[in-house]
Amino acid sequence: MKILVLNCGSSSIKYKLFEMDTCTVLTQGGVEKIGLPDSFLQIKCANGEKVVIEKSMPEHTVGIQLILDSLIDEKVGCISSLSEIQAVGHRVVHGGEKFSQSVLITPEIKEMIVKCSDLAPLHNPANLKGIEAIEKILPDLPQVAVFDTAFHQTMPDYAYMYALPYEMYEKYAIRRYGFHGTSHRYVSTRVCEFLNMPVTGTRIVTAHIGNGGSCCAVFDGKSIDTSMGLTPVEGLMMGTRCGDLDAGAAAYIMEKEHLTPAEFSTVINKKSGLLGVSGVSSDARDITAAIKSGNKKAELARQMFIYRIRKYIGAYAAAMNGLDILVFTGGIGENDIYIREQICKGLTYLGVDVDYELASQVQGVEKLVSTSQSKVKVCIIPTDEEIMIAKDTMSLL
Amino acid sequence: MKILVLNCGSSSIKYKLFEMDTCTVLTQGGVEKIGLPDSFLQIKCANGEKVVIEKSMPEHTVGIQLILDSLIDEKVGCISSLSEIQAVGHRVVHGGEKFSQSVLITPEIKEMIVKCSDLAPLHNPANLKGIEAIEKILPDLPQVAVFDTAFHQTMPDYAYMYALPYEMYEKYAIRRYGFHGTSHRYVSTRVCEFLNMPVTGTRIVTAHIGNGGSCCAVFDGKSIDTSMGLTPVEGLMMGTRCGDLDAGAAAYIMEKEHLTPAEFSTVINKKSGLLGVSGVSSDARDITAAIKSGNKKAELARQMFIYRIRKYIGAYAAAMNGLDILVFTGGIGENDIYIREQICKGLTYLGVDVDYELASQVQGVEKLVSTSQSKVKVCIIPTDEEIMIAKDTMSLL
Repeated sequence: MKILVLNCGSSSIKYKLFEMDTCTVLTQGGVEKIGLPDSFLQIKCANGEKVVIEKSMPEHTVGIQLILDSLIDEKVGCISSLSEIQAVGHRVVHGGEKFSQSVLITPEIKEMIVKCSDLAPLHNPANLKGIEAIEKILPDLPQVAVFDTAFHQTMPDYAYMYALPYEMYEKYAIRRYGFHGTSHRYVSTRVCEFLNMPVTGTRIVTAHIGNGGSCCAVFDGKSIDTSMGLTPVEGLMMGTRCGDLDAGAAAYIMEKEHLTPAEFSTVINKKSGLLGVSGVSSDARDITAAIKSGNKKAELARQMFIYRIRKYIGAYAAAMNGLDILVFTGGIGENDIYIREQICKGLTYLGVDVDYELASQVQGVEKLVSTSQSKVKVCIIPTDEEIMIAKDTMSLL
Repeated sequence: MKILVLNCGSSSIKYKLFEMDTCTVLTQGGVEKIGLPDSFLQIKCANGEKVVIEKSMPEHTVGIQLILDSLIDEKVGCISSLSEIQAVGHRVVHGGEKFSQSVLITPEIKEMIVKCSDLAPLHNPANLKGIEAIEKILPDLPQVAVFDTAFHQTMPDYAYMYALPYEMYEKYAIRRYGFHGTSHRYVSTRVCEFLNMPVTGTRIVTAHIGNGGSCCAVFDGKSIDTSMGLTPVEGLMMGTRCGDLDAGAAAYIMEKEHLTPAEFSTVINKKSGLLGVSGVSSDARDITAAIKSGNKKAELARQMFIYRIRKYIGAYAAAMNGLDILVFTGGIGENDIYIREQICKGLTYLGVDVDYELASQVQGVEKLVSTSQSKVKVCIIPTDEEIMIAKDTMSLL
């Protein structure tokens, strides 16, 4: 069974075609710069070959048509007919309170996704464009929506409510939703399989650390708290997002700089985080390089980055009255040996005991890096949101 | 030696007169509603008697004159001449980055307090009014400023910096300052004396929980992190303040409700917290009563309140790689048996083992309530900011 997974942004579409019988990726790639004159499709074939095709893509349907054409192309394709694809799974960013799991897309479901667009005005409309493009081109193909927020819908109210006037929740649905849910679900499930530990009763913190980042407290296989909130700004320090910030400081900055809410959003989303503090880059690898050349602000940025992750792990240990498994995932979590080490070295009070020599050799692969004496199992689990989307899609058919 | 301690607000002045030889309070009270037609002075004499004197007080100097007059009054006074007072200690809210300890007030110091007013526009000018009123009436009396922020000036930069563009710190001094510093200093010092434990090497979390509230991580007797930030809005859920909130949600609310930064500040400072969520009251006692009569929102508000304190204790345990002492102070921390119990019951993973039967009898007195097996000493220490201000004042003379 072949399933196509799509992640549609406002000007890009990423795709992966899975053969579910073997859980393998047949081909993957993406179109970028939709709507711009220099739009292109990039294909990573199964044999590792990369192909770039420049083509004008004024809107999403053209981009999706180009992707579909490439799948059956004689040279770069991997299937002989589009009829081999049995379903499409879509990443949808915001499911609000309406979606606590993945769903088959119907006209009613599309309506509900539209209703959640207010909470993710950049993402949900782009996700819908992808859904509608497939509808146009392959009207009979079943489509599934997999929400970034769904996994966190199990949070108790005392964890998801903000201490604002209650009517803010009633009028505008302002609450913590959390994101990266598909990743937290994948790695928290996968780590239990990997360690052969039961899901029930196990207290897990998953640290998804990449350009965006969030921590999640998982108990009994369910998300009970997570660091991103109404928006993906809250929580950890990220590449360009500020993470936790005094709401009083938000008002103070807007007053001082005469910013509108939209302008302030740009500051906290695009100009803060590692980039804002270091003045160098949003990329942890550039920060590391800058530190090596003696940049003090880069050093500060990295210390803040590490410290805040450690505090969230501590807070979630308190939320669950202890910790059994700590998982690192995401670009930084899977690959940055120093950052992982600095986080773990301050957690010996929880019984975290890492084999740092072993851990220093682990990048991008599944591995238990804690010692046999460690009370907390510390694992690296590379995330795979696409396989999760493909599996959800298959199970809904 | 007699020292007068003043805490001047924008429309009120609280005072305590100390006899430092015996560390006793000779008399205390306050004026309220300065500038309003029904302003009055209330005196609590050493013998417990309360006296209320109504008098028009158009501004602070009149209020202070009235307080001084009452001290030497034949009926309600306790000293025979103002010359018996050897110094005045003032609570000053914001010392910015300029003050890491208490100081004797000079014209230069007053200038510096004025410069910090931008960060506390309601409080510092009122504190200065008190200082200047004393200058007018008793020009030769030494005065000392004790800052709410000073104790937290030992925080490392990675704990006090926000992940905003670095120029926000350079241009506007936007960073975490923390408040309640005099209280956190007092209880963290006092608990070590009380338990006969060394300050050095000891990891303490002080939970100051009242109508306002903050947690502080104290290591080696120094504040290394605290939950209030640039403003007293950040951190714990409070009577009317929201505590931690997604900065993205701040922008979202302002956009939706068409609020100016000042209007938004009012929402998060005055209409949120226990009051905002419960719709009942900002007072924990009223919340408890509402829960007893079946109010679900009041129940939610209390659960949120407890959960957030527990998470901060967990985060600070991670910041210090463990915890030796947990101190409860402030109106709720000293008196609310249920809230303390609910916080501690989720912290057994740290080795917190409380004798709940004993703890249920402790209100407003110094007491160790953890068992002898408990790895973490849990104490109730009633706070006393005024004695701290008086002691600082004495030691600076």
